[in-house]
Amino acid sequence: MADELVFYSNPMSRGRIARWMLEEVGAPYRTEWLTYEGSMKAPNYLAVNPMGKVPAILHGKTVVTEAAAICAYMADAFPEAGLAPPTSQRADYYRWMFFAAGPVEMAVSLKGFGIAVPKERERSIGCGSYESVLDALSYAVSRTPYIAGDSFTAADVYVGAHISWGLQFGTLEARPEYQVYWDRLKDRPACLRAKAIDDEEMHRQLGAAKAT
Amino acid sequence: MADELVFYSNPMSRGRIARWMLEEVGAPYRTEWLTYEGSMKAPNYLAVNPMGKVPAILHGKTVVTEAAAICAYMADAFPEAGLAPPTSQRADYYRWMFFAAGPVEMAVSLKGFGIAVPKERERSIGCGSYESVLDALSYAVSRTPYIAGDSFTAADVYVGAHISWGLQFGTLEARPEYQVYWDRLKDRPACLRAKAIDDEEMHRQLGAAKAT
Repeated sequence: MADELVFYSNPMSRGRIARWMLEEVGAPYRTEWLTYEGSMKAPNYLAVNPMGKVPAILHGKTVVTEAAAICAYMADAFPEAGLAPPTSQRADYYRWMFFAAGPVEMAVSLKGFGIAVPKERERSIGCGSYESVLDALSYAVSRTPYIAGDSFTAADVYVGAHISWGLQFGTLEARPEYQVYWDRLKDRPACLRAKAIDDEEMHRQLGAAKAT
Repeated sequence: MADELVFYSNPMSRGRIARWMLEEVGAPYRTEWLTYEGSMKAPNYLAVNPMGKVPAILHGKTVVTEAAAICAYMADAFPEAGLAPPTSQRADYYRWMFFAAGPVEMAVSLKGFGIAVPKERERSIGCGSYESVLDALSYAVSRTPYIAGDSFTAADVYVGAHISWGLQFGTLEARPEYQVYWDRLKDRPACLRAKAIDDEEMHRQLGAAKAT
């Protein structure tokens, strides 16, 4: 029997990235919905993720946290899904996943806080300036149809989710090349299925909150 | 003939992480020293890394940027070095590399800026609070001798370099478990060789700057 796959998430979280990946892989999984101030900070979940954050997955006895790590792990654990390049050809795959997990995430967060990186700090901070991150992201999405070459991979789930999020909430400039790239991804059946599941739960939660 | 391996770096940069990895792998490589305000922003280097930052490697015609991605790429490109777990067992390997590249890097940078994450933003920011990141890092380094199990991997280079840097410059609390973990890594011949090369170049540059 295959190892059970449990997915800990909340519909208003980066768990949406991981669900898209789970849907791309297509292996059966069970969702445990967690609440920010409740079950996410409960001892039995802190044993899974001491950060008390979602997403996380439990695959048999194996825990993975961090949305990007879940994407990379799932692609390797289910090679039949064909979502990771061969290990001899992973330059762009790792490069842009780590670029999104580090500089993009940080630049967008700083922007969200209204913090401009002082010129003299651009040198020491990992993400440099917001503009340089956006320019590098433009470069990344414009070289090949998918971020790691001619085929869709887990790196597109991760980078694509960042771009989709940024375009939707205005944390990224609406550059045409981002939209072209996202248009290539957004109608994938796994992406649509994942969105429908999270949207339904989000509306259920918001409805329940209104009713109280 | 094997593909040439060119390493773009500066001794006062995250290039130190990548050099340690290069030394662990043991394949011959050539260093191109770049300067922050000069060659790092020159067109021929921007073609390698549009961020205009180091480190980067050029392996044959393949470019990799982002220190963590260089570690992951090198481990896969040189499997004979034994620095990556089999692809079926990469949960902790990816988990802690992405944790260091994302939350640790961001939490330490915000701390460096003197920015405390407001309580109401901890939920939406990827790194949560500085304390929760440090606690999760304590957990990560205390479970097994190395970060991804019983053997040293590229993830130890990346996470270990963050811890070494944090202990040296005081950006991480000097927790005993960090020191115990770092003591397990710091005398590795590749780590010592890498440090000697970067220190020598750093002193040469500082000496040259004084002389002018």
